[in-house]
Amino acid sequence: MTPPNHIAAAVLQQIREQRPLVLCLTNSVVQNFTANLLLAVGAVPVMLNHAGEIEDLMHSCANALLINVGTLDKNQAQLMQTAVRCAGNANIPWVLDPVAVGLLRYRTLVCNELISANAPAMIRGNASEILGLLGITDSTARGTESTTTSSNVIIPAQMLARHASTTVLLTGETDYMTDGQDIYSCANGHELMTRVTGMGCAMGALAAACTAVANTPLHAAIATAAIMGTCGDIAANAAPHPGSLVPAFLDALDTISPTALQNLSKLAIL
Amino acid sequence: MTPPNHIAAAVLQQIREQRPLVLCLTNSVVQNFTANLLLAVGAVPVMLNHAGEIEDLMHSCANALLINVGTLDKNQAQLMQTAVRCAGNANIPWVLDPVAVGLLRYRTLVCNELISANAPAMIRGNASEILGLLGITDSTARGTESTTTSSNVIIPAQMLARHASTTVLLTGETDYMTDGQDIYSCANGHELMTRVTGMGCAMGALAAACTAVANTPLHAAIATAAIMGTCGDIAANAAPHPGSLVPAFLDALDTISPTALQNLSKLAIL
Amino acid sequence: MTPPNHIAAAVLQQIREQRPLVLCLTNSVVQNFTANLLLAVGAVPVMLNHAGEIEDLMHSCANALLINVGTLDKNQAQLMQTAVRCAGNANIPWVLDPVAVGLLRYRTLVCNELISANAPAMIRGNASEILGLLGITDSTARGTESTTTSSNVIIPAQMLARHASTTVLLTGETDYMTDGQDIYSCANGHELMTRVTGMGCAMGALAAACTAVANTPLHAAIATAAIMGTCGDIAANAAPHPGSLVPAFLDALDTISPTALQNLSKLAIL
Repeated sequence: MTPPNHIAAAVLQQIREQRPLVLCLTNSVVQNFTANLLLAVGAVPVMLNHAGEIEDLMHSCANALLINVGTLDKNQAQLMQTAVRCAGNANIPWVLDPVAVGLLRYRTLVCNELISANAPAMIRGNASEILGLLGITDSTARGTESTTTSSNVIIPAQMLARHASTTVLLTGETDYMTDGQDIYSCANGHELMTRVTGMGCAMGALAAACTAVANTPLHAAIATAAIMGTCGDIAANAAPHPGSLVPAFLDALDTISPTALQNLSKLAIL
Repeated sequence: MTPPNHIAAAVLQQIREQRPLVLCLTNSVVQNFTANLLLAVGAVPVMLNHAGEIEDLMHSCANALLINVGTLDKNQAQLMQTAVRCAGNANIPWVLDPVAVGLLRYRTLVCNELISANAPAMIRGNASEILGLLGITDSTARGTESTTTSSNVIIPAQMLARHASTTVLLTGETDYMTDGQDIYSCANGHELMTRVTGMGCAMGALAAACTAVANTPLHAAIATAAIMGTCGDIAANAAPHPGSLVPAFLDALDTISPTALQNLSKLAIL
Repeated sequence: MTPPNHIAAAVLQQIREQRPLVLCLTNSVVQNFTANLLLAVGAVPVMLNHAGEIEDLMHSCANALLINVGTLDKNQAQLMQTAVRCAGNANIPWVLDPVAVGLLRYRTLVCNELISANAPAMIRGNASEILGLLGITDSTARGTESTTTSSNVIIPAQMLARHASTTVLLTGETDYMTDGQDIYSCANGHELMTRVTGMGCAMGALAAACTAVANTPLHAAIATAAIMGTCGDIAANAAPHPGSLVPAFLDALDTISPTALQNLSKLAIL
């Protein structure tokens, strides 16, 4: 079996070579940072707001789709339904980032409908959001934050992966990746990353880029956690405050080689 | 009477301890910077676009509300009406940032309606905007800028505070804070801050965070002016150009201690 | 005839003196960066979302208008039609940035309608977008990217300038500027700029600021290419990774003097 750090390195190598184009339907707070993250790592972002144009792009040059419901409204929900349907027709993988699902009811409904319409390749969420998709209320949820520890939600993540025929990337102090069978962990990443808006959301976009090039969604999830966490470690070491962390983090995404990723990532199989 | 620099330090200490959650209904230009400012100082930002979700959040975990009309449209005006009503029902303080009010008629109407529906804890505006809320046209207004000096608008600010049962934070080269009775001034801050978009808007968000934890809105206004101005001084000294000012400013918000704020703030009672 | 580097220096000098106010109707990904670019170079950005307010601003203090269709929807298309009509009535120059036109059909239609309604002072696009406005499909277009070399599209750019009674700023590894008669080139700029989202879009906003103060749109196009490219060179030399390039680029826009621009710009007449 390929060691997980070799998997992560191979996926990063593929992103650099294939430069996957990721259509991002994401929240208005993080669009700029999300686009810059994708460009820094070697992928190509596109963001659109019109159903016809989403169809044009999904049927021409899109390689993956990100759906992030952070600032969802009814118009955007309709655009997302169109995009997810097109992704199914064009056999393009899509990633769901269920921001604050469970706490907020409208988006919980919309996410469940999207999952039912066309199973995502991956769902990336924190402990509270993964529980929310299973219909379980996390009373510690506070906006996009939760004090529930990711390690307590490994079994629910596995259940969600099986139930929704998807791969789950459960993020927290330790990240866990599961396709419902195997479970991997990633111990990279730094607390300072939670002090920058959109780190989690941009991670969802990176996950979409990885699904476009990886052999399996589980490989994509392993690579996503490793790339984000390792670059976060590098950046927090160089720039230990939240303002200067942002440029340092983007620089790390640009600089990191597959070999460096292989050496620095702290991945394990459970 | 507590000296104003002690008040500012106490409010900053409370933000760090309580980590207030601020729902920001703000303009699309500054959402990312606003969220990063709140995270850097120790608060928690949330931004939403759906009336039902705003109700969910206001009745669960929100501690303060920011209304900023910088890129107002009819949909957002309706969301703001919902949010301000919920704030009243849930006894949550809200802050109004009347961007370019006076110059632009639609937002002037909407802001006056919001103020009538539920008095804000604080209004943060420049000279032109404070005059605009009083129905006085500032012929020097040019977009979000104005050449009217804040010191010339102290009396109108006091009138607005009394008339609207609120506290006014009047910003400019010197900032003035008044609840209609007492008047404080803050001489911190650097001209370079006007060369970064959203500095004023993000100050409104900080004001909302301060109202969530301060004993009175006037204390919150004093702390807001002191934190922004002091961190601006620190950042402009370290990074005297507008691009590098942004990360330096966010780093300063993260680094500054209540004691440092107490020593560096240039507050006075008039 | 005035050498083009003298023209560029004179336009930069005028921006600093006149501080033109640019109404930017632009895509949601790049609004913050666009506003910061305009502030850094010495201009004044405004962004609005309401037809009545756009009319208020266009008839009071606006000096130029930018239309960028990057995240176009039907509401924004209507706002753009209003703004372009007002620009015609108030004799204010406007600049079109036809992001991804040709690849995406809805925006192609909207841009052609806007051009017909009121000829823009300038159109800024890459090779693929200039071809798209002429009804020619560039099969290498991929989102906002294209592998078609700008030098292969000089003649079509000249045709578009004549056909639409406008000036074209064709961007790529080398930029070309033409009013349909004369053709200038600019060899400044760095590949790293393509790794930051919104560099092209913000260039459109700078173009609008330049049209507000330059003697002719062609002079504005020459200055736009020179300022962007020269500041990109300076920034990429100081900060050779995409994250730190952003603050370094904005700092360069703030720092560069007309004399430095005159000395560093690589402009030529063809």
